[in-house]
Amino acid sequence: MADSTETHTETKLPFAGTMPEWGNRADRHPPLAFVDSCLRGVGQILFANNPVSGLFILLGLFAASPWLGVATLIGLVAATAAAHLLRLDRSRIRAGLYGYNGALVGGALATFLIPEWSPIVILYIIAVSAMSTLVMLTVSLLLVDLLHLPPLTLPFNLVTLPSLLATFAMTHIQHGPLLARHVQEPINTTLRETANAVTGGSLSSALFEALFRGIGQIVFADRVLSGVLILVGLLVWSRIGGLFALLGSMTGLLVGLAFGGEGVSEYHGLWGYNAMVSAEAIAGVFLVCTWRSILYGLVCAAATTVAYAGLGIWSGTFGIPVLTLPFCLTTLVFLSVSRATNRFRAVPLSKVTSPEEHLRLPR
Amino acid sequence: MADSTETHTETKLPFAGTMPEWGNRADRHPPLAFVDSCLRGVGQILFANNPVSGLFILLGLFAASPWLGVATLIGLVAATAAAHLLRLDRSRIRAGLYGYNGALVGGALATFLIPEWSPIVILYIIAVSAMSTLVMLTVSLLLVDLLHLPPLTLPFNLVTLPSLLATFAMTHIQHGPLLARHVQEPINTTLRETANAVTGGSLSSALFEALFRGIGQIVFADRVLSGVLILVGLLVWSRIGGLFALLGSMTGLLVGLAFGGEGVSEYHGLWGYNAMVSAEAIAGVFLVCTWRSILYGLVCAAATTVAYAGLGIWSGTFGIPVLTLPFCLTTLVFLSVSRATNRFRAVPLSKVTSPEEHLRLPR
Amino acid sequence: MADSTETHTETKLPFAGTMPEWGNRADRHPPLAFVDSCLRGVGQILFANNPVSGLFILLGLFAASPWLGVATLIGLVAATAAAHLLRLDRSRIRAGLYGYNGALVGGALATFLIPEWSPIVILYIIAVSAMSTLVMLTVSLLLVDLLHLPPLTLPFNLVTLPSLLATFAMTHIQHGPLLARHVQEPINTTLRETANAVTGGSLSSALFEALFRGIGQIVFADRVLSGVLILVGLLVWSRIGGLFALLGSMTGLLVGLAFGGEGVSEYHGLWGYNAMVSAEAIAGVFLVCTWRSILYGLVCAAATTVAYAGLGIWSGTFGIPVLTLPFCLTTLVFLSVSRATNRFRAVPLSKVTSPEEHLRLPR
Repeated sequence: MADSTETHTETKLPFAGTMPEWGNRADRHPPLAFVDSCLRGVGQILFANNPVSGLFILLGLFAASPWLGVATLIGLVAATAAAHLLRLDRSRIRAGLYGYNGALVGGALATFLIPEWSPIVILYIIAVSAMSTLVMLTVSLLLVDLLHLPPLTLPFNLVTLPSLLATFAMTHIQHGPLLARHVQEPINTTLRETANAVTGGSLSSALFEALFRGIGQIVFADRVLSGVLILVGLLVWSRIGGLFALLGSMTGLLVGLAFGGEGVSEYHGLWGYNAMVSAEAIAGVFLVCTWRSILYGLVCAAATTVAYAGLGIWSGTFGIPVLTLPFCLTTLVFLSVSRATNRFRAVPLSKVTSPEEHLRLPR
Repeated sequence: MADSTETHTETKLPFAGTMPEWGNRADRHPPLAFVDSCLRGVGQILFANNPVSGLFILLGLFAASPWLGVATLIGLVAATAAAHLLRLDRSRIRAGLYGYNGALVGGALATFLIPEWSPIVILYIIAVSAMSTLVMLTVSLLLVDLLHLPPLTLPFNLVTLPSLLATFAMTHIQHGPLLARHVQEPINTTLRETANAVTGGSLSSALFEALFRGIGQIVFADRVLSGVLILVGLLVWSRIGGLFALLGSMTGLLVGLAFGGEGVSEYHGLWGYNAMVSAEAIAGVFLVCTWRSILYGLVCAAATTVAYAGLGIWSGTFGIPVLTLPFCLTTLVFLSVSRATNRFRAVPLSKVTSPEEHLRLPR
Repeated sequence: MADSTETHTETKLPFAGTMPEWGNRADRHPPLAFVDSCLRGVGQILFANNPVSGLFILLGLFAASPWLGVATLIGLVAATAAAHLLRLDRSRIRAGLYGYNGALVGGALATFLIPEWSPIVILYIIAVSAMSTLVMLTVSLLLVDLLHLPPLTLPFNLVTLPSLLATFAMTHIQHGPLLARHVQEPINTTLRETANAVTGGSLSSALFEALFRGIGQIVFADRVLSGVLILVGLLVWSRIGGLFALLGSMTGLLVGLAFGGEGVSEYHGLWGYNAMVSAEAIAGVFLVCTWRSILYGLVCAAATTVAYAGLGIWSGTFGIPVLTLPFCLTTLVFLSVSRATNRFRAVPLSKVTSPEEHLRLPR
């Protein structure tokens, strides 16, 4: 897209796609290249290999909570630095592929551990985030090399879940009230802000809140403004990607409502964030966007939502959250199908850029 | 076997083996071919790629409960239809390989969810069964393509377990009293029909009940008549297969009694159904039937029973049943051994038909 | 090392390394070869393919408890005999690779099941240990053949965990008080012998106890003398290996203290045994010993300790111990990294002997 010889591109947007021209320019200045890698890492949480998208997502994080933003940055830098230290493949580092899991680790530990800003939590974030880079390699060995499937955010889940569990056995790292074993009790399905309060607003405003909080929750940002900023960041990279993030969050919310999920968690967007990335992944990122893959992506978002409900009971038994495991597992299943049928056009993993560019890939 | 040139076959049974002649005839009429695929799918739950076996198993299901039978049919059709929709390999669809997991999903959800005949449960069965076809492809990618091991009923387990868990988080789909978290309490080992009642009958009649209920339980049919019908269906396909199903169920029951398992679950055949399919799989289906593989199959059935006990505690912690996971995991271990030793003759996955035909495979 | 042409070896130790000369001599007498294979199997728990090391570890086991020693021997012999029965690769049997998992099974079941010396427990040890040989083949199919990673003690964990769980469902095999579901309660971090008693000794003596009990705990030997004997056995095989076992146990203990782990379990070495084998595996056994791999091995030991804490909460939810799962999973992650970077020199799996000999491997 940024290739100047591609004269057929009508609307030339300087920030769209993966911004290769800017990437090349940043390469000449190592510190700038590192910053660019990190920003792309934030974007990669939502598949956006684009520094401007990363910047908007960061803005969304800080809008929700400065501690969340800083913790995400710490994780991001630690994971990317670990990749440099291990001298991993440079082009993959530059694409942010060793940053996004660490960024999510930072956000997760900032959300579930207390107290905020404490040195020991920061130390723990650095250690676990760096570890996510190692697990990325392990997961890639099986998924990418042998099965030709993307690792998604599986490394983030695989390091964060035991790290959160460990806080139940280590007194010097404390977990907050969000980590508690699941207790079976009657479920109240009314969309509402907290367990006790009645929403003053209308149902439509509650739905609006849930929809955008769902987008924010992919990075633990429980605020409408964060969701809006993240959506804008996505749209910079890809209009198709942004659209399906929105539709995915909506699908998750509607499935949650239809099946009678718990109202407080629905209000806070927890039924939406997994479905959002599932829809995005299928309808454009890893499969070329067609009417069939669009439908398939929305079905995947719905399946992800049921997986969210089921895996949440599983992880809740141990007192931990489900993170993005429902997205990872369901999306891997839906993607693996493209290997056995010619009903979908899979994008080769090394060619993944943006849904719009995938439409121009030669068959 | 149906090959007319094989004149050495003494007793020519028209319904035995995989009935390829009938299969070819059915191929000429698409609706008939679909029905044939579905019936073979029911048979494949017990490895019987044979429509008559499938018919008998269905009879067994309806004998136990019409709702169970209908739900199994719904799952079967949904999974097979999904395979058609995705244009998957036709010969595999015709062999029922995309139906058996869906059939089991239907039976499982009909058994554990309430109320019977409710539209939302039917809808849920359709969705989860169709999903089983996708998971079949994912599992095959790793097990069949890379490890040359059969997927068994792993896809059924992998979709059903989270789907059952999800009902704890979704009020509009209700689970019945069979889904409850395991509580540690004294175990009563007396074989008996219910937790409170004393069996009026003798021990030998209780053993007989347990043996045949064990066969029925593979499709959630908790009735002696169902077990008998299923056994007859198996014998149509293969006398060796039927014999080892019976011996497998018996092995499970005896191991359960020897180790002091819970009496009510033993009476209802729950210690037998996993062991049954393990014995069948090893002693004839995936290994050529020899004295050594017979012994090995019975050892596998015994190991499966201990795995059943152990995994039942694991799944019971979350409030869900263990389904056929003990069979899948244990049988995969026993089968993988045949790759490292020449003590057993493994049947290539593409040549699996019936134990009798495997005896005639060239070395 | 035992090669007489290697004249550059200054200190020629007759028992060091893998003792190939002795191995060849034992080969001429089948019963002696079997004993040698078994002793190497005990050594392999700590990567020491050396019969003298195995003998010292056995001494350590008997020093802790004769029942523990005998049970380990039973498991060892059963697993090795199963490998002979299945006619598995002879050179692997001779290297003890089909014995170490069985030895650990024997020790684990002797530790967690009651009563001691009971025939049914002995029978159960024989069955589960033999099963470990089958699981070794399954695990190798994926890890060794496809991913070129060592199976470590994963087979031991995979058979023992469900076998322990099963005792909750089988009244004729009883588990002792060590198998109990984890209850969340305040954690006391003071290093102390039991939950109630105050250690009479000083902190430094408590640290010393914890350090050596940590070495012993790899084979369930909760006694300082056992730890010392095991360390001596290791040093016979490799000075580097022995050193990093000690440093690994120390790392585990220090990380446990730093993060505020539970004091009784720290005193009894439970925070050390996983970290010990992790350090050994990385700093010399599977990666060539360099300053970089030494540092990497200690980081791996620290990461293993956090994994120990986290996975312990996971397994404790079901009432079972975590065994050596933290070591297996963490070490596999750290080893897989060596495939994506040239910062470490991986020892090919077929060339693993002892850290000292690896230093002499041609590049």
